[in-house]
Amino acid sequence: MSTKQRILEAALTLFNEQGERAVTTNHIAAHLNISPGNLYYHFKNKQAIIFELFLAYETRVLEYLSVPDDRPLTAADKVNYLKDVFTGLWQYRFMHRDMEHLLNADDALHARYREFFQLCLEQVRKIYRGLRAVGMIELNDDDVDALALNTWIVVTSWFSFLRCNLMEENQQDITLEMLWGGIYQIFALERPFLTDDYRAEILRLQQQLSPKPDWLG
Amino acid sequence: MSTKQRILEAALTLFNEQGERAVTTNHIAAHLNISPGNLYYHFKNKQAIIFELFLAYETRVLEYLSVPDDRPLTAADKVNYLKDVFTGLWQYRFMHRDMEHLLNADDALHARYREFFQLCLEQVRKIYRGLRAVGMIELNDDDVDALALNTWIVVTSWFSFLRCNLMEENQQDITLEMLWGGIYQIFALERPFLTDDYRAEILRLQQQLSPKPDWLG
Repeated sequence: MSTKQRILEAALTLFNEQGERAVTTNHIAAHLNISPGNLYYHFKNKQAIIFELFLAYETRVLEYLSVPDDRPLTAADKVNYLKDVFTGLWQYRFMHRDMEHLLNADDALHARYREFFQLCLEQVRKIYRGLRAVGMIELNDDDVDALALNTWIVVTSWFSFLRCNLMEENQQDITLEMLWGGIYQIFALERPFLTDDYRAEILRLQQQLSPKPDWLG
Repeated sequence: MSTKQRILEAALTLFNEQGERAVTTNHIAAHLNISPGNLYYHFKNKQAIIFELFLAYETRVLEYLSVPDDRPLTAADKVNYLKDVFTGLWQYRFMHRDMEHLLNADDALHARYREFFQLCLEQVRKIYRGLRAVGMIELNDDDVDALALNTWIVVTSWFSFLRCNLMEENQQDITLEMLWGGIYQIFALERPFLTDDYRAEILRLQQQLSPKPDWLG
């Protein structure tokens, strides 16, 4: 693995574990047993590392959200979208921990993020239209737009929700099980639109993947 | 107005305008033309001011969300809940700007906030059950629980969503119109559950209060 790649991986690990604010470029260099000078040869500052990590995240998410153009969507696709998106969220969780701070610190990143949001929103709309096309859900175009946006908000706010509302004082980090509760909530957003033909199958998949969390009522 | 009350009002205004992190107790005292010593007589530090503002917000929101026990809920109630909640959100917007930071800085506030979340969630469930009882929406208890949580997430994340995804670089603050878009999204969460008896009336109310925002698809 190249030094550049090792720096990115170490930064991602440390940011996720300790929060981006708590980690300096010196910490990253020390973690890798390289000199700060060597790190600066590859990245001029911490923001440059964050930007590069964001680009990797962006590529990954847009891949996750791609819609096959050679076949109709299936219930398995729906499950995979959710698994992939929440796995990506977890792997880059430092970004959603303090998104406003990161974006305020870097106008270029903020501009890129706004574009990323629009691209994602359009992909999510495409997915919902695809699920409508195969008869899995029934809803009009306004419903698709609002559902796509609510999906985006619940997904991108899920970590913050967990940390503000559910994490106990002595708890170090959110658990994968807490993370998975977000999938339950996304299923719930779509559930009222399920058609009779698909309802039983989707509810069964939901139950397998992400049953109702104990803490939810 | 008492000095204590004046301090709270000035702090709220300054926190909302400039962000809580940018405002010190000295700024608040200077804004009121009182000495820092006078301020410290009423509040031992900034956290104490934030805690007191939170208590006022909490009281207000729990009032907003109260369910009348002497009559059934109406469509007008539904509209008022949304208007009140989003107005309160706006009036105390500094809290939802940097909630994680505020909660991390004060364990007592965080504990209180977690309780507040549970109380609100239960009230929102009660409201949805009330709307079900009058035949406005049709959904089962699991739907109520998930809908209440998604409502909480969209409402409490709405500011952060706007700032991360929609605010342009040169824009100073979010506008009331952007804020109102959140009401559209909450209506959309509930829309698929509307019964035929009420659908037309609720859609008309939604259209009046909060038509689909231009930027949404």
